[in-house]
Amino acid sequence: MNILDNFFNESSVIIDETLDKLIPSGESREPRRLYEAIRWSVFGGGKRFRPALCLAVGRAFNIEPKKLLRTAAAVEMIHTYSLIHDDLPAMDDDDLRRGRATCHKKYGEATAILAGDVLQTLAFQAIAEDENLPDAIKVKIISELARSAVQMVDGQQLDLEAEKKAVSIEQLETIHQNKTGALICAAARTGAIIGEAGESEFGAISNYASSLGLLFQITDDLLDVTQTTEILGKTAGKDVSAEKATYPAFYGLDETQRLAKKVHFQAIDSLKNIEKDTNLLNELANFILERKK
Amino acid sequence: MNILDNFFNESSVIIDETLDKLIPSGESREPRRLYEAIRWSVFGGGKRFRPALCLAVGRAFNIEPKKLLRTAAAVEMIHTYSLIHDDLPAMDDDDLRRGRATCHKKYGEATAILAGDVLQTLAFQAIAEDENLPDAIKVKIISELARSAVQMVDGQQLDLEAEKKAVSIEQLETIHQNKTGALICAAARTGAIIGEAGESEFGAISNYASSLGLLFQITDDLLDVTQTTEILGKTAGKDVSAEKATYPAFYGLDETQRLAKKVHFQAIDSLKNIEKDTNLLNELANFILERKK
Repeated sequence: MNILDNFFNESSVIIDETLDKLIPSGESREPRRLYEAIRWSVFGGGKRFRPALCLAVGRAFNIEPKKLLRTAAAVEMIHTYSLIHDDLPAMDDDDLRRGRATCHKKYGEATAILAGDVLQTLAFQAIAEDENLPDAIKVKIISELARSAVQMVDGQQLDLEAEKKAVSIEQLETIHQNKTGALICAAARTGAIIGEAGESEFGAISNYASSLGLLFQITDDLLDVTQTTEILGKTAGKDVSAEKATYPAFYGLDETQRLAKKVHFQAIDSLKNIEKDTNLLNELANFILERKK
Repeated sequence: MNILDNFFNESSVIIDETLDKLIPSGESREPRRLYEAIRWSVFGGGKRFRPALCLAVGRAFNIEPKKLLRTAAAVEMIHTYSLIHDDLPAMDDDDLRRGRATCHKKYGEATAILAGDVLQTLAFQAIAEDENLPDAIKVKIISELARSAVQMVDGQQLDLEAEKKAVSIEQLETIHQNKTGALICAAARTGAIIGEAGESEFGAISNYASSLGLLFQITDDLLDVTQTTEILGKTAGKDVSAEKATYPAFYGLDETQRLAKKVHFQAIDSLKNIEKDTNLLNELANFILERKK
């Protein structure tokens, strides 16, 4: 097993443990159905890429995991709340997520809306009540996470407005930087905040994460075209049928693959001025470039 | 003009100014439609009761308004986000709010869902980035507000589950304590946190606010029966037609009015051990008892 597989395995265990502590169970808290719905979506087999990124940045700064866990889990909660809402009939109207029924398919629209709402709140609560961080750091993290969460929704709105319209490549990039990139950046940047990174290191991490986010979206677009629904665990070919603007739609497959490699190089290159062990962060970028689902 | 009218007028002006600063305008920020939708709901002529309560508690503790403004505005943002989502077709399916079209009627469901999502985020961001409060206080406020926002959604879920079912008076109270009471409590308690209230004073404010929240719900139920849609600015008689559990449905009008007076007395009585000028808080309770819309 390589270093990254090991890291993903370890981090997904501790992230899931943290999420399990932070999210009330349907057995312990009323209204049961609401917390079951939240857990259905949170423990639906996600890759936990964003919290792993937060942990990996923290590790580069020699931060013990317990200082990172709630923040990393909070990032995953924001991500999952956005998936629940984006899947709703009024939005992307998707039946399948992470290989099983979407939250609203399983629990109905009203509960799904509320499940997303609570999950967002719990993310901020988790950080505010983190006993392993000083208040000054918590406040910075909440600000960072909130700013990215607003951008994420901006991106979703832009994406909805762009459907079935001709959009430029610049518009496409704006959509992705907001919808996907901002939260990936926040995952890395909150790790750097906890790591008390200096200004230039913080800038380097931000650039790395920004490229990583773009790479993530490019490979996401590629997978939608090249993989099956079964492998993805979500509806494949959906971008094409929804006439969505994507990188392959603009550039074709070959050129998009070249773009992915270029952006991958930029991510790796951003790390070269950080005087820390960034091996894991390099491996994460490799993983995103080569991912099959 | 009496002391309370004066106070409401003053506080709604400064709250609106604060909200105006905290919420990007559709002219300055893309996606324009999203921020227009948020502003449609936020500046839709609400009474600003919750932020006024926060300011009133702060005033009792001799806190200058600038230390309270963002927190008070954040409470209003949480309240408004919940209204936007509760009005959605999948939930209460309401066309009218604060005298005009609900957010989804005006901007469509997708944008309304996203508008509520962003508004919740902006509430937490506003507190995290408040330059007039120390970090320790901000973290406490975010925790308090988050806990109440989770309870609020619990209450909405319980309310949806209770529709067209026989519920006991205890269940009805649980619904209201969560759905309406928790955020009203948080409005008062965050004011007391900023006021650095001692333990017994904090307890007294909590009891006061808890009674005030219950009183608010009882009078809300009464108004739904006794007032017209035109006066309320939202659909009157809706509780009856939705077969919702309400205080008048349980107790009848006369008994509900007696209950309102009893709860009003409890609110006032809670304040007697606070050695501050609680005149304004008494007047607020009177206002809720006697409100006509």
